[in-house]
Amino acid sequence: MITVSIIGGTGYTGSELLRILSNHPEVEIKYITSRKMDGVKITKLHPNLKGIKNLDNTTFKNIFPADIDSDFVFCATPHGASMHIVPELYEKGMKIIDLSGDYRFEDISTYEEWYNLKHTGKLDAVYGLPELHREDIKKTKLVANPGCFPTGAILALAPLVKEDLIEDRIIVDSKTGVSGAGVNPSETTHFPNVNENIKPYKLTTHRHSPEIEKELEKLTNKNIKLSFTPHLAPITRGILTTTHTFLKENVKRAEVIDIYKKFYKNEPFVRIFDEGAPTLTGVRGSNFCDIGGFEVDKYGRLVMVSAIDNLVKGASGQAIQNMNLMAGFNETEALLYGGLKP
Amino acid sequence: MITVSIIGGTGYTGSELLRILSNHPEVEIKYITSRKMDGVKITKLHPNLKGIKNLDNTTFKNIFPADIDSDFVFCATPHGASMHIVPELYEKGMKIIDLSGDYRFEDISTYEEWYNLKHTGKLDAVYGLPELHREDIKKTKLVANPGCFPTGAILALAPLVKEDLIEDRIIVDSKTGVSGAGVNPSETTHFPNVNENIKPYKLTTHRHSPEIEKELEKLTNKNIKLSFTPHLAPITRGILTTTHTFLKENVKRAEVIDIYKKFYKNEPFVRIFDEGAPTLTGVRGSNFCDIGGFEVDKYGRLVMVSAIDNLVKGASGQAIQNMNLMAGFNETEALLYGGLKP
Amino acid sequence: MITVSIIGGTGYTGSELLRILSNHPEVEIKYITSRKMDGVKITKLHPNLKGIKNLDNTTFKNIFPADIDSDFVFCATPHGASMHIVPELYEKGMKIIDLSGDYRFEDISTYEEWYNLKHTGKLDAVYGLPELHREDIKKTKLVANPGCFPTGAILALAPLVKEDLIEDRIIVDSKTGVSGAGVNPSETTHFPNVNENIKPYKLTTHRHSPEIEKELEKLTNKNIKLSFTPHLAPITRGILTTTHTFLKENVKRAEVIDIYKKFYKNEPFVRIFDEGAPTLTGVRGSNFCDIGGFEVDKYGRLVMVSAIDNLVKGASGQAIQNMNLMAGFNETEALLYGGLKP
Amino acid sequence: MITVSIIGGTGYTGSELLRILSNHPEVEIKYITSRKMDGVKITKLHPNLKGIKNLDNTTFKNIFPADIDSDFVFCATPHGASMHIVPELYEKGMKIIDLSGDYRFEDISTYEEWYNLKHTGKLDAVYGLPELHREDIKKTKLVANPGCFPTGAILALAPLVKEDLIEDRIIVDSKTGVSGAGVNPSETTHFPNVNENIKPYKLTTHRHSPEIEKELEKLTNKNIKLSFTPHLAPITRGILTTTHTFLKENVKRAEVIDIYKKFYKNEPFVRIFDEGAPTLTGVRGSNFCDIGGFEVDKYGRLVMVSAIDNLVKGASGQAIQNMNLMAGFNETEALLYGGLKP
Repeated sequence: MITVSIIGGTGYTGSELLRILSNHPEVEIKYITSRKMDGVKITKLHPNLKGIKNLDNTTFKNIFPADIDSDFVFCATPHGASMHIVPELYEKGMKIIDLSGDYRFEDISTYEEWYNLKHTGKLDAVYGLPELHREDIKKTKLVANPGCFPTGAILALAPLVKEDLIEDRIIVDSKTGVSGAGVNPSETTHFPNVNENIKPYKLTTHRHSPEIEKELEKLTNKNIKLSFTPHLAPITRGILTTTHTFLKENVKRAEVIDIYKKFYKNEPFVRIFDEGAPTLTGVRGSNFCDIGGFEVDKYGRLVMVSAIDNLVKGASGQAIQNMNLMAGFNETEALLYGGLKP
Repeated sequence: MITVSIIGGTGYTGSELLRILSNHPEVEIKYITSRKMDGVKITKLHPNLKGIKNLDNTTFKNIFPADIDSDFVFCATPHGASMHIVPELYEKGMKIIDLSGDYRFEDISTYEEWYNLKHTGKLDAVYGLPELHREDIKKTKLVANPGCFPTGAILALAPLVKEDLIEDRIIVDSKTGVSGAGVNPSETTHFPNVNENIKPYKLTTHRHSPEIEKELEKLTNKNIKLSFTPHLAPITRGILTTTHTFLKENVKRAEVIDIYKKFYKNEPFVRIFDEGAPTLTGVRGSNFCDIGGFEVDKYGRLVMVSAIDNLVKGASGQAIQNMNLMAGFNETEALLYGGLKP
Repeated sequence: MITVSIIGGTGYTGSELLRILSNHPEVEIKYITSRKMDGVKITKLHPNLKGIKNLDNTTFKNIFPADIDSDFVFCATPHGASMHIVPELYEKGMKIIDLSGDYRFEDISTYEEWYNLKHTGKLDAVYGLPELHREDIKKTKLVANPGCFPTGAILALAPLVKEDLIEDRIIVDSKTGVSGAGVNPSETTHFPNVNENIKPYKLTTHRHSPEIEKELEKLTNKNIKLSFTPHLAPITRGILTTTHTFLKENVKRAEVIDIYKKFYKNEPFVRIFDEGAPTLTGVRGSNFCDIGGFEVDKYGRLVMVSAIDNLVKGASGQAIQNMNLMAGFNETEALLYGGLKP
Repeated sequence: MITVSIIGGTGYTGSELLRILSNHPEVEIKYITSRKMDGVKITKLHPNLKGIKNLDNTTFKNIFPADIDSDFVFCATPHGASMHIVPELYEKGMKIIDLSGDYRFEDISTYEEWYNLKHTGKLDAVYGLPELHREDIKKTKLVANPGCFPTGAILALAPLVKEDLIEDRIIVDSKTGVSGAGVNPSETTHFPNVNENIKPYKLTTHRHSPEIEKELEKLTNKNIKLSFTPHLAPITRGILTTTHTFLKENVKRAEVIDIYKKFYKNEPFVRIFDEGAPTLTGVRGSNFCDIGGFEVDKYGRLVMVSAIDNLVKGASGQAIQNMNLMAGFNETEALLYGGLKP
C-alpha cells in the first residue's frame, strides 16, 4: 500500500488519475490539490466518481507542495508550472510522475525554444514510455510522462527506426479528440466550432514534434526528419495517428509485421493488428495502444496507424503504469480493461 | 468461482457482458455462442478485448442450448428467441438471466399484445431490478433483465408512486443513444440520418411503455396512466429520461428530495442529485443510475431526470448485478467503476 | 431596393442574417456594426461568406445607432441592450426588427420578472410570428422577433389552443442544438461537456416559458398552463420540440390533422406531416417549421412534434421573413430553400 | 430555359442535385428516375424539399434511359452502371454529366484495373473540373464529374505541380464525412461504429488515387508519385485534405502563396487563405473549395490543406457548375451561397 497525491485535480488528467486510482487496490489517495476549489467535494466537480470508495467525503485541498508527504506525487500541472514544484518534492525524496512537458527533454535548449519558457528547475528524469525505458523507470525517482501525440507516434514508429527500415523522411498526420485541449472552454473547444468540422492546427509548429523526434533518435545513430501535423476532430477522446514513411529498398511488408510482433511481444498494452488498421473504439477508456496498417503502395510508402485514448495511454493511464513500475507493483494493476466499444 | 455462458455473443449486450465479466474475479467464461461466427476468435469481432485474460484464444461456438452446462447462462438473444431457449436451460437447473423482453411480464397477454408474438415458453421469472426486487432475485433461478428505458424510468418514478405523491398522469420523455438499436445497420442507425438530428419514434407505441407501467403498479394499489415517448439522439451510449408529473397538493419539493434519499439510501448504484440534474457523461460505461431534477413549476409540475448507460445499467451491467445477487457474491463485484467523464 | 443595417454582426444571428441577405435581390447591406471588430473585414470572422457579393470588401464598423440611416435595422443585440438602442432608431423613423427578448412582451412586468432587468425603453411592437400576426407585421415599424423555442412550440400548439381541443395542461419538452447558446465559449458549450451527452437545463425556469404562454393565450379566452423544459443536445443547429397534451373527450386524431392542415393551408414555411414525425435533417439551414406527430395514446395524450433550424426560422430567417412583409416584398424572397439533408 | 433529368434520384448526389436545381431559374426538372420508387412522391423520400417549387407534386419514374428526352441528363448512377446508360443518351444528342467513375479515365486499362470491371461503353469525355478544363467543358457533350477526394486534392496540388515547385513524392491524407459512403446503411456507416471514432480505410488502394495522379500528370511532363490515404470521420458532410509535399530547394513560402493567388485569381469557387488553414464549417452546403495552409517546416515539407463539401463541390454542385458551362449560363447560377456556418 502506498499513499499518492495529485497536484492539480480539477483538469482532465487529474480526474482521469482519480478515476483509475479509485480502483487500484494498493493505493490510498492522500491529497488532491486545487487552489480555486479548496474545501469543495471532489464529487461536486467529478460527479462520475460519486459512490466510489471514499471519494464522496474527500475534498480538494489548497495545499503547498512543501506540505505534501505521500509516497508518490502526480503533477497534473500545466507546462511551466511543474518546474516550480517538482524540485522541492524531489528533494524531499518523494517519487514523482510529472504529466507536463517540463521534464521530457534532456536538452534544455530544445525545451526552452519550443515552450518559449526559461527552465529554472532542471533535474534528471526518465522519459516515461515503459515500452522503451522500462528498466530505467523502475529505478528513477522522477518520470516525465510522455505527451499524448508522442505516445501514439513513437510506438507506431519505433521498430521502423530501430531496425533501420525506412528512409529519412517521416510524416506523421494525427487526428485528436478535443479532451486533449483541456478542461477550460475556448474558441477552439466551442461545440459549434468543432462539430461537423475537422481542424488542422499548428501545421508545422506543434511542441510534440521535437519530443517525438528526440525519442526516436535515441533508437538510432541517424538524424530523424520528422514532419508532424495534428488535426482536431469532433470526438472527445482518442488520437489516431497515421504515419507515412518510405521503406528502404528490399524491405518487405511481411518482414515489417514480424519485426513489430517481436518488438512488442511481451508488452501488455501494445496490440499489433496484422490485418486491418485499428480505430478509436477499440481503445476508448483503456490503456492500450493499438498498432496496425502495414500497407505498402507501389511507391514504397508504408502506412502505419496507431490508436490510443489520449487521456489514458496518452496521459493518466500511462502515468499509473509508470507508478506501478516505480512501486514494484504488477505493471498492469488497475489498468487491464478492454476499450469501451461501442 | 462459477462458470458462465453467453448465448448471443456478437451483439452489443453480449460484448458488454464480455467486457465486464472479463474483470470479474469469480467468473470463468465457458461458452460464447454464435451461429454465424462459429470458430471465429472473439477478439476478431471485439478487438477492444484483445490482451484481456484469455479472450485472445477464445472462439465463438455454435453450440445448442442443450449442450450448455455452465452454472449461469446469459441469454443475450432477441425478443421471441429467448422463449425457445430458456425453458430447456431452466429444466437442466442452470441459473438464467434473460436480457430479452420474453420474461418481463407476469401477464402473458400484455406480452403477446405488445410484442405481437405467441408466447410458448412461459415460466415464473423475477423482474431483475435489484432496487425493487433484491430478495426475490437472490432466490430465483430465472431473472428477466429489465429493458433499458424501463430501468431509467422506473427508478426515477418509483418513490413518487410508492409514496403516493403525484396525480395519476405521468409523462415520460426519453432520449436514447443509438447503441440501443443494436449492432445491425439500418436506415435508423445510418450515420447521416442520426448525426445533427433528433428523431422521435414510436410516439405512443413503444413496448417499454407497458413494462414501466406494470412495474410501477406493483408499488401501489392505483392504476398508473403512463405516457411514454422515446427520441433517438446522436450519441452512442446513454439514456436521459425526463419525467413530467403533477404533485398532489401540499407536497413540497424538500419532502420529495427526502423521500428519494431515504428510498435509495443503501443502493450502491443509485445516486441522488439534490442539486441540478444528472447528465450522461457521469454514467458512461458505468452501472450507475443518476437521479435528480426535483424542480417544481408554478403549476405543480415536477421534473425528475434519470441518466443511465443503456448498455450497462440498462442491460449487461444490471444483468451481472443480478448474477452477483443470485450467486451470493458481493453485489458490486466487477461493477463499481466511475463513469468515463469526459 | 432597400438599405439594411445589422447591429451586432459578430454573433450567430448576425452572421446568419448576412448569409441570407447576401442572396436577397432587393437588399443592399449598409452597416454591420461591432464595437470590438471595428475595421476588421467581415470575411475574416465569417470566412464562409468570402467570395459572395461584395462582402470581401466590407468591414465591421463601430458606429452609433444614432448615425445609422438605412431603411431597415436588425438588432442582433443581447437582451437588455436592445432597449437602449431601439427607441432612438424608432424615433428616426426606421423600420426595426429586434431579435432580443426586449420587445416580446406587452406586459412589462412579465419581462422584468423573467429577465431580471428594468425596462427603460418601452414601445409598441408586433410579435413577429407571421403565421399569427401577418397583417400587423405588414403595418408596424417595430417587430419583436420571436425566441427560438417559442417559434417551434407556438406553431406546434396554436391550432390546438385556438380550436379548444385540449385540456388545460400543456407539457413542452424541447431538444436544442448548441448554437442557441451563442458564439461565446463557456462550460456549457465546451465540446467534451456536450458531446455524447444530453443536458436538461432551467428545468422550470426558462424565459421562453412565459413567451410561449402569453402568445397562446392571445388565441383563447382561457388560461394556459404551460410547463416547459429544454435540453441541450450534441448538435449545432435545430430545435425539436415534443409537446404532450391531453385531448378533450371526443376529439379524434383525424379531426386534429384536418384542423392543422386548414390552419396552415397557405403558409409558405409551415409543412404538415400527417404521417410520421419531422426531424431536424429536413429543416437544417432552411426557414421551414415542420409539424407532425399526431399520435394519441389510450389515455388521450396527444404527441405533436415540431422541427426548426433555430438560427433560421428560430431567428434570422424569420427576421428576414418579417422584413419582407414590412417592405412589401414577396414573403419568401431569399428564404425558399430546402433543408440541407443529409 | 433547359429541361433536365436525373437518373438515380434516391441517393445523396441525386437529392443534392434536386436541392440545388430547385433554385435554378433556367432549369425545368423533367424526369427523376428510380426503379424501386416508381410513382412515389419525391418529397416522401426527400421531405426537406417539401414546399419548394412544384416538387410536392413530382414523383419518381421508372423510365428507361431510351425514353428520356431532356436537354441535359445527370447520371447519378453507381460505378459500372453509367457505362450502360450513357452511350444511348449520347447517341440521342443529349448533354450528359456523369457522376460515376466510368468516364474519368482516358486510359481504359487504369479504370478496369482499379474498378475491377470491364468497360463496355467507352466514349470521349471531358474531366469536369472547371478550374482546369473550363474551355473543354463548354464544348463537350459528356462530362465526367470528378470524384470527391480528387476535387479537393487536385485543386490543392495543381499549382505546385504545374509550376514544378515540389519533389516527386506527394502524400495526401484525407478526412471525409460519412455521406460519401452513400445512402445505403452498412457496417461502415452504422452510427456506433462511426461516432467517437476515426477510421482509416483502403490505406493504399483507394480508386481516387489514380484519378488524382492522372489529372496532375496532365499539368506536367513528369511522373507523379502520389500516395493517398483516406479516413472516415464522424461528420456527415465535408472532406478536409491535408497534403504533405517537399519543396524544391530555394522555393519560398511567399512565392508559393503568390502562385496560388495567381492560379486561382478568377475562379469563383476557389478561395485562397493566405493565413491559417480552412476548415469544413466554411464550406458546408456550398460549392466552394477553400485552400490554405502554406506552412513549411525546417525539412522543407509544405503543408497545404483544402476543404470542400463532398456532396456539393465534390459532386452535385460541381455537376451543376459543369451544366452551367455547357449550357452557356452564368457559371455561378444557383451556386453562389456561403457555407452554413456554424
